[in-house]
Amino acid sequence: MWCKNAFLAHSRNFIQLNHVYKNFSAIASVIEKASVGEVAEVKGWVRNLRVQKELVFADVNDGSCAQRLQIVIPKNLKPETLTYGSSVHITGKLSKSPRGQLELVAENVNVLGPCVVLDGYPFNPRTTHSPEYVRQYLHLRSRTNYISAILRVRNSVTRHIHDFFASNNYLHIHTPILTSNDCEGAGEVFKIQPDNEETVKAMMQEGRDKDSVYFGTKTFLTVSGQLHLEAICRGMGNVYTLGPTFRAENSRSRLHLSEFYMLEAELAFCDSIDKLQAVIEDLLKYLFIQTINSNEADLHLIDKEKARLPFWVDKKFVTLTYNEAKSILDKKGTVSTEEGLNKEQELALVEHCNGIPVFVIRWPKEQKSFYMKECQDDYTKVDALDLLTPITGEVVGGSLREDDYEKLKSKLPSERLNWYLDLRKFGNIPTGGFGLGLERLLQVICGVNNIKDTLPFPRWPHNCDM
Amino acid sequence: MWCKNAFLAHSRNFIQLNHVYKNFSAIASVIEKASVGEVAEVKGWVRNLRVQKELVFADVNDGSCAQRLQIVIPKNLKPETLTYGSSVHITGKLSKSPRGQLELVAENVNVLGPCVVLDGYPFNPRTTHSPEYVRQYLHLRSRTNYISAILRVRNSVTRHIHDFFASNNYLHIHTPILTSNDCEGAGEVFKIQPDNEETVKAMMQEGRDKDSVYFGTKTFLTVSGQLHLEAICRGMGNVYTLGPTFRAENSRSRLHLSEFYMLEAELAFCDSIDKLQAVIEDLLKYLFIQTINSNEADLHLIDKEKARLPFWVDKKFVTLTYNEAKSILDKKGTVSTEEGLNKEQELALVEHCNGIPVFVIRWPKEQKSFYMKECQDDYTKVDALDLLTPITGEVVGGSLREDDYEKLKSKLPSERLNWYLDLRKFGNIPTGGFGLGLERLLQVICGVNNIKDTLPFPRWPHNCDM
Repeated sequence: MWCKNAFLAHSRNFIQLNHVYKNFSAIASVIEKASVGEVAEVKGWVRNLRVQKELVFADVNDGSCAQRLQIVIPKNLKPETLTYGSSVHITGKLSKSPRGQLELVAENVNVLGPCVVLDGYPFNPRTTHSPEYVRQYLHLRSRTNYISAILRVRNSVTRHIHDFFASNNYLHIHTPILTSNDCEGAGEVFKIQPDNEETVKAMMQEGRDKDSVYFGTKTFLTVSGQLHLEAICRGMGNVYTLGPTFRAENSRSRLHLSEFYMLEAELAFCDSIDKLQAVIEDLLKYLFIQTINSNEADLHLIDKEKARLPFWVDKKFVTLTYNEAKSILDKKGTVSTEEGLNKEQELALVEHCNGIPVFVIRWPKEQKSFYMKECQDDYTKVDALDLLTPITGEVVGGSLREDDYEKLKSKLPSERLNWYLDLRKFGNIPTGGFGLGLERLLQVICGVNNIKDTLPFPRWPHNCDM
Repeated sequence: MWCKNAFLAHSRNFIQLNHVYKNFSAIASVIEKASVGEVAEVKGWVRNLRVQKELVFADVNDGSCAQRLQIVIPKNLKPETLTYGSSVHITGKLSKSPRGQLELVAENVNVLGPCVVLDGYPFNPRTTHSPEYVRQYLHLRSRTNYISAILRVRNSVTRHIHDFFASNNYLHIHTPILTSNDCEGAGEVFKIQPDNEETVKAMMQEGRDKDSVYFGTKTFLTVSGQLHLEAICRGMGNVYTLGPTFRAENSRSRLHLSEFYMLEAELAFCDSIDKLQAVIEDLLKYLFIQTINSNEADLHLIDKEKARLPFWVDKKFVTLTYNEAKSILDKKGTVSTEEGLNKEQELALVEHCNGIPVFVIRWPKEQKSFYMKECQDDYTKVDALDLLTPITGEVVGGSLREDDYEKLKSKLPSERLNWYLDLRKFGNIPTGGFGLGLERLLQVICGVNNIKDTLPFPRWPHNCDM
């Protein structure tokens, strides 16, 4: 029989168990917790090596933090294979350098894996390689300062996102990657098929083509989890998802990827656009504050200018209607050949508002998706929003959802979405939600110009290495 | 200029901001925090309705917890459209029922969305529908007890996984969904293409087929993030990923999905299989303990028998070599026509060990993947492990990775993996890792027989609705 006391005893047990393989020797822990005179053990990679008359100085980093630990090695202890790029296991005693920095005086130096630069290693010591150069070596680039710092920030931002929603009682939902919904992506979707011809043959039924043989229907990679979130929201309340989404666009801009992560949230019982704006504004400010707190040294390594809170963090975000935004742009004389706002115009609006993020609301209906709710006082507009920030322009898009059964029915783009219409038929509630591009947010937080450097394995046209 | 004090001031600011749209009226909060005599506001769905002479009793649930709140409605306040399945907004005063349970005496009842069962709503009050029946209505099934409780457990288990690894300094890495590695999945992979014929035409180059027109190489959905994790691990230390993976198998068993979530971890500087076992055993025990703590009422709703800690949580897991396991099975007289262990044999081994989870280690080399490390004392075996549990059999698979450059080179299945070989050439380290199927783990934690009920939108052959 299970009882609370037994549980607590088990919890204590666990606390011991939990440390069996805790990474005690991580350089982050050594720098934070150990003190001069203590014995320490470090495993990592040599990021720099200076050989002097009596002593060798090796800067070692293990990826656990932005800092390198300086190792002082008496020359007689230096193995032949100790070079830039090699992996090492070092034991010794902690000491203070003449400059007052913590350093490790080695007593034992073991090279785990040598690194012969002339054998094709693409990086050199004391050299700043361009992001474009480094991007050619995806499998090795986590060894560079720039990329490893960004990946640590990405890890933290992801965690802060989950913390924000968990503390506000949102349920995390894994929306599906594979979907038979064919009408959200404006045609720029990937379709899937089994690769194995025997599987295709075995599953083939009369009248079906290869595209629909496996699932019985043509199947795509998701462009958004919103419609699925709406289904769960209408039974379980506030929900969110953070997962990969896909676009088969032929775009190679510094703001586009074929595979990227999107945070999407759906708010139950949400009946006004300003509630949605309040949550988005809270979330953005929370993420900037928490990330400075958790990763200041990493942000400093990526871009010194960004290692501080943005000035707007205690200011209210600006709100403009679409018409107001257009009239500001007209006065500036910017011209758009397309509907809506182009990237240049988005950035001009942020500049116009002195760099404070800008919500643009009340969009013309014909520019936005079928599921967006008509404004109550103007049937030509919908209750949609874009949030514009410096560097990337649009980083969030959202709307109230059309909850009128007849209106939605008249706009439904495909019979395949009858299930979505059904949601309005049985115990319907008002909802609203938004999507935030994780990589674009990371660009803004870190000050990274090219989106391809904000995730470990970027995919874009003609590039799917590894 | 940014400084620590300013940061703290901002943090305080945030704490106020953060509550703008906190879900104060969630039934979970009302039950936990409010007390008799207080005014309360509740929004949710009517899960049961009993009409008596003077009073109407409505059980309302909003998905925030397993419990329903009983609403007592004076008959004159009952709207016509208040029925089973309808969504409601109710204000009133909290009180105690004659049985001592918290209830809400309604002062205002507003039906947000009616629900006419005869109009096609598939569920009925006071009826237990079978999981197979409910599964036909994916878009509505989060309104059932069984599925909503499982989704809350899934949310918690996911969170506990992140907590476990964060507290042990593992970095969360988003490994890619799209990959050009073609040699891990034993042929059972999905391939992808742009759906838009114009995109295909615009990107077509001479000598390329449709499968490789977009990325310049044939591209698949991932079957594992392990190789990518290994690349990051060899620069940043301990890493893990938790994301979707895919198999294009023609299998409809209660244990298989076409899209499922896998937790994969890679341990830096890991040179023995027992370190790997220790982490896996810790993780499993941690997840069971934390989930009982966070979701006891949900587990009770799913299966009364499972709403307690398993007896093995303070016992050491059993370890058997593959040879030992085979000899136990031989004595039992179970026969396998295939290599390795079949499902029946896996479950027989767990039963043989009195229901305690069993590690099977030291597997014949020819049964396992090319990247697994040869045992030091027996070149016919590899340092691999399977962890077997009740209900599902195998739930974790793992190994030390071959770190000898020449041995790995001789086993490499494709030139496309030269990057993987490269990792052994430059500053190599010993690593080991494992993969855990999230849905199978949920089956074991919740006691769910069919894997299709452990995630919101299951995909399996001929089934990709929504």
